[in-house]
Amino acid sequence: MKYGVLGTGMVGQALATKLAELGHEVCMGARTSDHKDAKAWLQRVKGKGKTGTFADTAKFGDVILNCTQGAYSVDALRSIDASDLAGKVLIDVANPLDMSQKPPTLTICNTDSLGESLQRAFPTAKVVKALNTVNCEVMVDPKRVPGEHDLFICGNDDGAKDCVKALLREFGWHSIIDMGDITNARATEQLLPIWIRLFMMFGSADFNFKVVRAG
Amino acid sequence: MKYGVLGTGMVGQALATKLAELGHEVCMGARTSDHKDAKAWLQRVKGKGKTGTFADTAKFGDVILNCTQGAYSVDALRSIDASDLAGKVLIDVANPLDMSQKPPTLTICNTDSLGESLQRAFPTAKVVKALNTVNCEVMVDPKRVPGEHDLFICGNDDGAKDCVKALLREFGWHSIIDMGDITNARATEQLLPIWIRLFMMFGSADFNFKVVRAG
Repeated sequence: MKYGVLGTGMVGQALATKLAELGHEVCMGARTSDHKDAKAWLQRVKGKGKTGTFADTAKFGDVILNCTQGAYSVDALRSIDASDLAGKVLIDVANPLDMSQKPPTLTICNTDSLGESLQRAFPTAKVVKALNTVNCEVMVDPKRVPGEHDLFICGNDDGAKDCVKALLREFGWHSIIDMGDITNARATEQLLPIWIRLFMMFGSADFNFKVVRAG
Repeated sequence: MKYGVLGTGMVGQALATKLAELGHEVCMGARTSDHKDAKAWLQRVKGKGKTGTFADTAKFGDVILNCTQGAYSVDALRSIDASDLAGKVLIDVANPLDMSQKPPTLTICNTDSLGESLQRAFPTAKVVKALNTVNCEVMVDPKRVPGEHDLFICGNDDGAKDCVKALLREFGWHSIIDMGDITNARATEQLLPIWIRLFMMFGSADFNFKVVRAG
């Protein structure tokens, strides 16, 4: 499976590195083809990967991960030809945060979500919202948080969600809660306000939510 | 300690009944002084309580619990004279849900919250947001959900939060996470979108969140 990672920030770096370590073919995409952070990543994985523009990366991957800044993701992905995402799994890892606010607020929420916005922008892609409720180090190494804890995913296509669940298991995730269709991205993105405040309170991102239930 | 419970719905009934069972003096308030659901509650607790208007209830209580429908709480509480809440603890249990939407959306969120709205409407009251992230049966009997799980509270006044924590311990709560000032109500109210969806998925409200962390 070939993976295209859109975005060169901490989240993109963590996921692209993990995918390369797992032996997958990975391309890291940026707004420009010669982005310094993408080049630096390629050095860190000892040349075992590719870099390119967002458009190159979308063409390359069988599965695409959106790790761009959520508030700008729809705009950033506009350079991608929709036909290059047609039928492909697009994992939306981003959160639409307004980082100019302290603590950050959401630029989309309540009656819409980034996951839905991307699904509307690329109607033939199979958008799956996943991994957006944990820090990037926990994303690729869930054992950083001890014991049982949950990851939430959602999307309209069951086959795409099965593909994402298989990848999450490669990352070490055991408890994955499938919330249903992509409108449920509203719910998982709205976990960010409490996630951010807990992060500020703990001074550490090594935490996660667990849903505890009877029976 | 005298408690005033504003609201005659499931949440108000559960809390007023539990408070009466614990031996506290309780008044249940409604829009009218002869509300049938308030009268029915009084019968169920064998007359060991009072009923009245919202204004009567605010006057009566040392600690007031807002259990009105969150989308209408600010309006419902307008009949209360601010001086009757001055210096008192006002526990805001409600969530500002637009029940005409399926699943319900929030009528206030992201850059504001119901907790903050009530604090602005009653600046001399000590508003503490609490109990709004669990079902009313779990509120008064946290053991319905097995093992460890957390309750989030927030508010501007530390003394008021200590008073609420003491009451929560009477209800059986052990793990209470103090999120800070009342602006953090944005974070706990925004848990509702995922809470509602999990409730729909599980077909049961006997669940809660736990924050799992390293160390």
